[in-house]
Amino acid sequence: MEENEDANQENHVAPSRATRFRNLSSISHASNEDLNAIITITSNEDSGLILSSSVRRRVQISKEKIQTGSLNVLSAKYESLDYDPCENYLFLDEERKKGYKFIVQKNIARWFVFLLIGMVTALIACVIDISIEELSTIKYAALSKSVDKYVTQGKLYVPYMLWIFSNVVPVLIGSILVAYLEPIAAGSGIPQVKCYLNGVKIPRVVRIRTLFVKSVGVICSVVGGLAGGKEGPMIHSGAVVAAGLSQGKSTTFNKDFKIFQYFRDDHEKRDFVSGGAAAGVSAAFGAPVGGVLFSLEEGTSFWNQGLTWRTFFASVISTFTLNIVLSAYHGVPGNLNYPGLLNLGKFESFSYRIFELPIFVLMGAVGGLFGALWNHINYKITVFRMRYVQRKWLKVVEACIVAAVSATVGFLMMFTINDCKPLGLDPTKYPTQLYCDDGKYNVLASIWFQTPEASVRSLFHDPPNTHNALSLASFVVVYFFLAAWTFGLASSNGLFIPTLLTGAAWGRLVSIGMFYIFPDSLVHPGKYALIGAAAQLGGVVRMTISLTVIIMETTGNITFALPLILTLIAAKWTGDFFNEGIYDTLIQLSGVPLLPWEPPPLAHNIYASEVMSHPVVTLQCVENVGHIVELLKLSSYNGFPVVDPPLTDQTEITTYGRIRGLILKWQLIIILKNKIFNETCDDWDNITASKFRDEYPRYPTIDEISISDEEKTYFVDLRPFMNPSPFTILHSASLPRMFTLFRALGLRHLPIVNDTNEVIGMVTRKDLARYRVWKHRGRMGVEELLISKEI
Amino acid sequence: MEENEDANQENHVAPSRATRFRNLSSISHASNEDLNAIITITSNEDSGLILSSSVRRRVQISKEKIQTGSLNVLSAKYESLDYDPCENYLFLDEERKKGYKFIVQKNIARWFVFLLIGMVTALIACVIDISIEELSTIKYAALSKSVDKYVTQGKLYVPYMLWIFSNVVPVLIGSILVAYLEPIAAGSGIPQVKCYLNGVKIPRVVRIRTLFVKSVGVICSVVGGLAGGKEGPMIHSGAVVAAGLSQGKSTTFNKDFKIFQYFRDDHEKRDFVSGGAAAGVSAAFGAPVGGVLFSLEEGTSFWNQGLTWRTFFASVISTFTLNIVLSAYHGVPGNLNYPGLLNLGKFESFSYRIFELPIFVLMGAVGGLFGALWNHINYKITVFRMRYVQRKWLKVVEACIVAAVSATVGFLMMFTINDCKPLGLDPTKYPTQLYCDDGKYNVLASIWFQTPEASVRSLFHDPPNTHNALSLASFVVVYFFLAAWTFGLASSNGLFIPTLLTGAAWGRLVSIGMFYIFPDSLVHPGKYALIGAAAQLGGVVRMTISLTVIIMETTGNITFALPLILTLIAAKWTGDFFNEGIYDTLIQLSGVPLLPWEPPPLAHNIYASEVMSHPVVTLQCVENVGHIVELLKLSSYNGFPVVDPPLTDQTEITTYGRIRGLILKWQLIIILKNKIFNETCDDWDNITASKFRDEYPRYPTIDEISISDEEKTYFVDLRPFMNPSPFTILHSASLPRMFTLFRALGLRHLPIVNDTNEVIGMVTRKDLARYRVWKHRGRMGVEELLISKEI
Repeated sequence: MEENEDANQENHVAPSRATRFRNLSSISHASNEDLNAIITITSNEDSGLILSSSVRRRVQISKEKIQTGSLNVLSAKYESLDYDPCENYLFLDEERKKGYKFIVQKNIARWFVFLLIGMVTALIACVIDISIEELSTIKYAALSKSVDKYVTQGKLYVPYMLWIFSNVVPVLIGSILVAYLEPIAAGSGIPQVKCYLNGVKIPRVVRIRTLFVKSVGVICSVVGGLAGGKEGPMIHSGAVVAAGLSQGKSTTFNKDFKIFQYFRDDHEKRDFVSGGAAAGVSAAFGAPVGGVLFSLEEGTSFWNQGLTWRTFFASVISTFTLNIVLSAYHGVPGNLNYPGLLNLGKFESFSYRIFELPIFVLMGAVGGLFGALWNHINYKITVFRMRYVQRKWLKVVEACIVAAVSATVGFLMMFTINDCKPLGLDPTKYPTQLYCDDGKYNVLASIWFQTPEASVRSLFHDPPNTHNALSLASFVVVYFFLAAWTFGLASSNGLFIPTLLTGAAWGRLVSIGMFYIFPDSLVHPGKYALIGAAAQLGGVVRMTISLTVIIMETTGNITFALPLILTLIAAKWTGDFFNEGIYDTLIQLSGVPLLPWEPPPLAHNIYASEVMSHPVVTLQCVENVGHIVELLKLSSYNGFPVVDPPLTDQTEITTYGRIRGLILKWQLIIILKNKIFNETCDDWDNITASKFRDEYPRYPTIDEISISDEEKTYFVDLRPFMNPSPFTILHSASLPRMFTLFRALGLRHLPIVNDTNEVIGMVTRKDLARYRVWKHRGRMGVEELLISKEI
Repeated sequence: MEENEDANQENHVAPSRATRFRNLSSISHASNEDLNAIITITSNEDSGLILSSSVRRRVQISKEKIQTGSLNVLSAKYESLDYDPCENYLFLDEERKKGYKFIVQKNIARWFVFLLIGMVTALIACVIDISIEELSTIKYAALSKSVDKYVTQGKLYVPYMLWIFSNVVPVLIGSILVAYLEPIAAGSGIPQVKCYLNGVKIPRVVRIRTLFVKSVGVICSVVGGLAGGKEGPMIHSGAVVAAGLSQGKSTTFNKDFKIFQYFRDDHEKRDFVSGGAAAGVSAAFGAPVGGVLFSLEEGTSFWNQGLTWRTFFASVISTFTLNIVLSAYHGVPGNLNYPGLLNLGKFESFSYRIFELPIFVLMGAVGGLFGALWNHINYKITVFRMRYVQRKWLKVVEACIVAAVSATVGFLMMFTINDCKPLGLDPTKYPTQLYCDDGKYNVLASIWFQTPEASVRSLFHDPPNTHNALSLASFVVVYFFLAAWTFGLASSNGLFIPTLLTGAAWGRLVSIGMFYIFPDSLVHPGKYALIGAAAQLGGVVRMTISLTVIIMETTGNITFALPLILTLIAAKWTGDFFNEGIYDTLIQLSGVPLLPWEPPPLAHNIYASEVMSHPVVTLQCVENVGHIVELLKLSSYNGFPVVDPPLTDQTEITTYGRIRGLILKWQLIIILKNKIFNETCDDWDNITASKFRDEYPRYPTIDEISISDEEKTYFVDLRPFMNPSPFTILHSASLPRMFTLFRALGLRHLPIVNDTNEVIGMVTRKDLARYRVWKHRGRMGVEELLISKEI
């Protein structure tokens, strides 16, 4: 994966940042009249590549060589969320007028919304689960019957065709929905939710349409027999539900319920989404604590006790609602034994000996290896897809091919490997006889003729000797590659279940091996299946705490923490030696500027003055309307420092203005749209914070606003609307300091000031995300990624 | 609790902050020669009270009226930890020289230390547990035998005396240790650990002597029959273990192992302590996940994934080690059924019906009420103690009285209430017959003649009808007050167990009531005991997530999340209506400037210029040694902004200097001690970051350093040592913005700058902690606390 940069390292040395700095600072001496020119130049600069040369390792690829599928390029198209609240005049005014009652009311509404999120997420999960259950039952019952009917007649092609048909049709529907209606609904959705929680605005990720396509799509793909699960999509669904409910309006249906208006900003919405993701995990796995930890581990940077408590509440409500509905559906209302979609069965009598711990660690390492290999294969396939499978119909065709291949390999396996066991020992739902003697059934058919989730349950709980080594081994190999091919198709499905299934199969294989070596020892195959499953999953996703807790909660076994944690640590460390977790790989492929948890090490000698973008386009406190309009039309920036005019005294001439505040693009748009100009606006009482919230989250573009030529001569006072005290940092601050400030406070813009508080640059998320750790053959350092507008 | 301020509100209006500002800013125009005078004035100011008048609600108490036991005064004596790393020249130099290998090595060492922390914490827990177990067995076996021997002779005063004796002697030993050797070891230690993790330096809280006194003290107090538990002290012990192990040296034993030197700063140490506290929780309750959540909920402000992961590791290691040792001690090595000290037994077959949920909520509310009452009683007792029980011998006497009273009420109860049950049903260890018929035993004797922890277990798991209503009711009343009196004595004991015991008793009472009302329903008394215990504990401590998880893990019942969380929410909300949790009350009483999770609401109109302390004592980049010495001798500040000299051009005269960096008191001390002066120092290679770390954590005072008169004329260049890019904020920033910055980044000093980046003030933890929410009869606002040097 590192060849790209290595090969291109010598190719094309771009002008260094320092040179650019000199060039541009000479430009920035230009007067106000020349501002348009500057902006044009800047835009040109950014539309290409920002390259850099310094003593550190650089990623240098000439412009022509950039193509999709690089791990080392950040896309310029992603914007950030505004997590930092803007305490402008309107905000203070609202707070003063509404007082403490408003705060109490908002707080109660917040709890109520979290309650709703938990309930609605669970209900959606129930619909998905019941649909899959019902449809799969029909499908696999028919298949099993058909096999046993036609095997005697030697017409096995009939059930084979039936299988292919019943796989391809649902997958076709699902993939058409995904490819044509909402491509963002493809895959598990976890990487997208992770990016959103990290503060990156992923377009359309939390919209109702996405939820619809995701829900229908996941039913289609699981019923269609793809090697995928419904858990990842559930997490995404929870996030969408949270974003939708908390806003009290739907842009899709053009309906505003006029409630929860005060939650209409990025800060509040992101908090709700983090609760929704947790509720999704909770519904998917019946793991309320795991849900909270997931949303902390994947999303939150700043630990907020109140938010965490509400998230926990939503999680518990979610698992509870699901439990009530599913237990009623299964005919035991009030029994409350269905806490989550993923029901792996309880491990009641479960214990381990100390000598087993090293074995578990070893299995963890193997899981890490397998996981790294799986990730690499999936990465290569994804890159191939990004480059060559771009047309929508091609994506649909690919999904259908995979569906057909899944049926084919399954059929071949049960046809060629004759693993027969007597009936009755294993609680198989549809025992298929195939070539077995009477009173026996084909074990492989029973693995294939059920949903992957049920197969995991079988591997965990089937009594010893249910499966023989050959069938397990071939199943592992086949499913490993099938899952790697499936994940990333134009269909909504996650990777938890197929990964668990692969791991459980080789875990069970290990238990068979153990039994050969130590025939006396009481090796519980289900235990090894569990450890194998955890190891494989840990090797693929590299999550740690939340995964441990999720597995503990799903299996109901809290005493099994130590083996699990040892396995997961071993898997993570082994896997990390080779590559990154699959979610991070996918995020890097899409060029999202995700901020990691910590700044890269050894970066204390990189300073703000190097990192920042400059020159900065600034505005004055009272600014000409025409200037603002042109600025918005020409530049792609989202935040503008508001500054005093540069000093032009006799004694001191400054080129930069002293910072007064920070105003965002959308605020300017609202000002222009409502024509809040000094010359025309006389109804100041009417200009409230809610006017600015009404348009959230989709603001008009500057082209949609008509400003007359006369209005362009007007002036607007930006001071009541700007953020009057943005966090700033000195040009001499180091990268880790900027990073910490940015990450901890969830900033979007960080103006860089010089010694006299004049704005000389601006740091945004991309400027920080560009610096990344690299490790290669025992060396470690910092690399600078490219930023491109082309991917 | 609010009479104090209300009564004094009119009394004595001190000069407003604004007036002070005018007075002092005139002083700050003084030249450098007058600096000493300024410092003296400033010190005088601070030694009294800082009062304030504004439109907000103020706490105004005249100086004479301040006394210990007020909830509205912050003590000036607490300092903060330096959580923000200082990226000075030495730091960069070290990083450059040591490179990535150093980072890897440090990282491995970090994991290793967390491993050690988990193991040592568990071993200490084992020693405590086994000692208590053995000593209690001897004691209660003797008592039970003695009662049954002398009751027939009518000489019940003999066992009574024996009981008093066996209570008072251990308590006497424990309280002498606490009162005379290490008073900080009193109580549970949780409030102190919480303050430490919040960033407040609590003297001696993580020292070896504290650990010793705590460990021996907790054995004494539990064996002495006090209504206290060993769980809180375990958490404190874990914290001390972590702080000790991570430093690789012991000041107490004057031994430096020359390892882990790179962990010798507040930042690293605090991280380790947070892991140690989690390991303590894990050992105490067998709750590794709960441990992590506890240390997050109580301590961390900035979610750091790596740290959390290591914390989890330490927690799991801790419960695992404990498990191995205790299972070996109990004669079943390798069985691993002893995950924690608190063994409440497993609830295997445990389910609830939906109609029970409202009952649980109601029980939660009752728990909140009881908890609030308990807290109020304990608060009143604590205030009384702070005012009148100040002498050491008085404290010892009080502890002994409580020990004697505990024995007396227990004796009276079993003597007067004749609750007899047939032998054999209840697994009582020492059935005491007392006045019962043959073949029966006295239930109250069996509750009293065991450790409180065993009593909780009995109440959870004893079969129905073991206890009658009268004995439970009287037990609840007695134990409620006894526990409130006990907590806060000069002895090491926590409140978890007595609170759980009280709650379990009234929970069981509820189940008896339920049985009378719905005789048909299958009311499991143990379940109600658990809910009652959770409600009572939630009402007292008001912890939420971590407590839920701890109870789930301790009882091994993960499906019981919803009832627990509903109960705990109800308890917290009910309790919060009346007062704060007991830990927060104790922290407020001691005047520790704890920073809450969020800034007070409605405080956006309070600005930095109002909040900051000023004038600020600043240093210049190259500073006179004599000046530094005098400054350190006269002022009590811990951080000094390093500034450029004020401009005295013809055109511009500034009174303040432009900020260049921030230097801490201890750094100045090290510079003076090592005589790193421009005139004398020619061996710059010798001055490394490790020289500054060697003295950590106890630096010499300025009086211990001799500086000759000649040296006082020398100069020192502070630039290589200062933090060159401290976080600063504009004078116009609001209180919530400052608060967020301070809290998220764990700052100690926040210099306030004016528009041209000149330092005009300084904000420290106390300045922010002073602003607090108040709620009273449906109104809400912000109050300003006093800061006093007298408490």
